[in-house]
Amino acid sequence: MHRGVFITFEGIDGSGKSTHLRLLASELRLRGYNLVTTREPGGTPLGARLRDLLLRGEEQVDPLAELLLYAADRAQHVRTLVRPALETGHIVLSDRYADATVAYQGAGRGFPSDLIADIVRIGTDGLMPDLTLVFDVSVAVAHARMRKRNGIEKEEDRFEREEVEFHTRVRDAYRQLAAQEPTRVRLIDASGSIEETHARVIEIVLPFLEENAAGEKAARSV
Amino acid sequence: MHRGVFITFEGIDGSGKSTHLRLLASELRLRGYNLVTTREPGGTPLGARLRDLLLRGEEQVDPLAELLLYAADRAQHVRTLVRPALETGHIVLSDRYADATVAYQGAGRGFPSDLIADIVRIGTDGLMPDLTLVFDVSVAVAHARMRKRNGIEKEEDRFEREEVEFHTRVRDAYRQLAAQEPTRVRLIDASGSIEETHARVIEIVLPFLEENAAGEKAARSV
Repeated sequence: MHRGVFITFEGIDGSGKSTHLRLLASELRLRGYNLVTTREPGGTPLGARLRDLLLRGEEQVDPLAELLLYAADRAQHVRTLVRPALETGHIVLSDRYADATVAYQGAGRGFPSDLIADIVRIGTDGLMPDLTLVFDVSVAVAHARMRKRNGIEKEEDRFEREEVEFHTRVRDAYRQLAAQEPTRVRLIDASGSIEETHARVIEIVLPFLEENAAGEKAARSV
Repeated sequence: MHRGVFITFEGIDGSGKSTHLRLLASELRLRGYNLVTTREPGGTPLGARLRDLLLRGEEQVDPLAELLLYAADRAQHVRTLVRPALETGHIVLSDRYADATVAYQGAGRGFPSDLIADIVRIGTDGLMPDLTLVFDVSVAVAHARMRKRNGIEKEEDRFEREEVEFHTRVRDAYRQLAAQEPTRVRLIDASGSIEETHARVIEIVLPFLEENAAGEKAARSV
C-alpha cells in the first residue's frame, strides 16, 4: 500500500471546495507536510486537453462519451500523478475525484448505478481516497456565489448552464454518499463564512493526519 | 432494431483495410446503396480531437487512459453517427471498431479480457457490427507496405513505432476472433494484390447485403 494520504474535495460548483483546498494546502505546508495539490478534470497535461474538451463546450459531447472522457482523465491522473505521489509519501489533495462521477454522471445525468460502478472501478484503477470532504450548501447559495464570482462571464462554463434540478440531484447524491460511507466521506456544512467552514475542515483533517501519519512531514524527511 | 447494415474493417496497419473500404464504398455507391463511410478513432468532430491526442503522441498517454479514450471516441461515434445512420437505413462502413479494442488493447497491450469486455460493452452502447472483415496479412508484409506508404515520414504515427511482437499479438487476436465468431467475423487473405483481395471482399459482401437487404438502395427510396 501507499505511504501517503489521499484527500478529495467534493461538492457542487459554488460550494467552496476549491477555496478550501487552497486554504488547507497553505495550512498543511506551514505545518511541514509534503503536499501535492491537483484536480479533475485537468490534473495532467493530457487532462488539461480533456478538460478543455469537456468544459469549453466547443464540441458536442454525448453523455456516454463524457462519462468515458472523465474516466480517461482519471486514469491518467491516478497512474501518472496521484499514485506516484502517494507512493513517495505525499499528501495529495484533489479538487474532485471518483465521487464526482457518482454524483454528476450517476445522479445528475441519470446513468445506471452498475455502469457508474464499473466506470469508477476502471477509471480509478482501484484507488479510492482515504478521506473525502463534501462541501454541502444549498443550490440557491451555490448559484448566488457562482454569479458573484463570474460576473459577466457567467455563461462560459458548461456546468454553470446546468439547471437547478440537476444540481439538486448532484447535491443529494453527495449527501447520500456521506450517509453510506461516513468514515471516508465527511459532510461539511459550507453555508457559512469561509472562516467558519475552514475551521470545520481543520477540525477533521488535522486529527485524521495525526492518526494516519504516513504522510511524513518535510521537517522529518530532510 | 436498425434497418441498415453495419460493416467494420479490421486488421493491422498495412493490411489494406482502408484501401478496401474505399474500393467497396465505390462499388456499393455504383450499385445504388445509401452509404456512410467512417472510422475510429476520429469519425466525429470530437473524435477528430481525440484521434489527434491518441495518434500524434504529443502528450504521454497512459495505456489505461488510452483504452478509455478509444471507448469515449466510440461512444460518441455510435451515438451521434453510426446508430442514427443505421436507423435511417444506411449501410455504414467503419475503418476499425470494437474488435480493434480486443486486438490492440487486449492482446497488444495485455489488458485482462474481462476489463476489455466491460469497456467494449460500455463504449459500443451495445451495438455490434453485422459483418466484420479482417484483412489478414503477415506483419512483415504489413510493415513493408507501411514503409513504402510513408516514405520518410515513417516515424510519425505512434502505431508505426510499435514492435513486431506487438503487431504479431494483434494479428493473432484478429485471427482468433474470426475463429470464435465465424458468422460475423470473416478472415480475408490480404497478402495478394489489391485486385485479388477486392474480389474476395465483393464475394463476401454482395451476397451478405442481398440476404440482409435492410440497407435500401437509393434507386428504390427516391
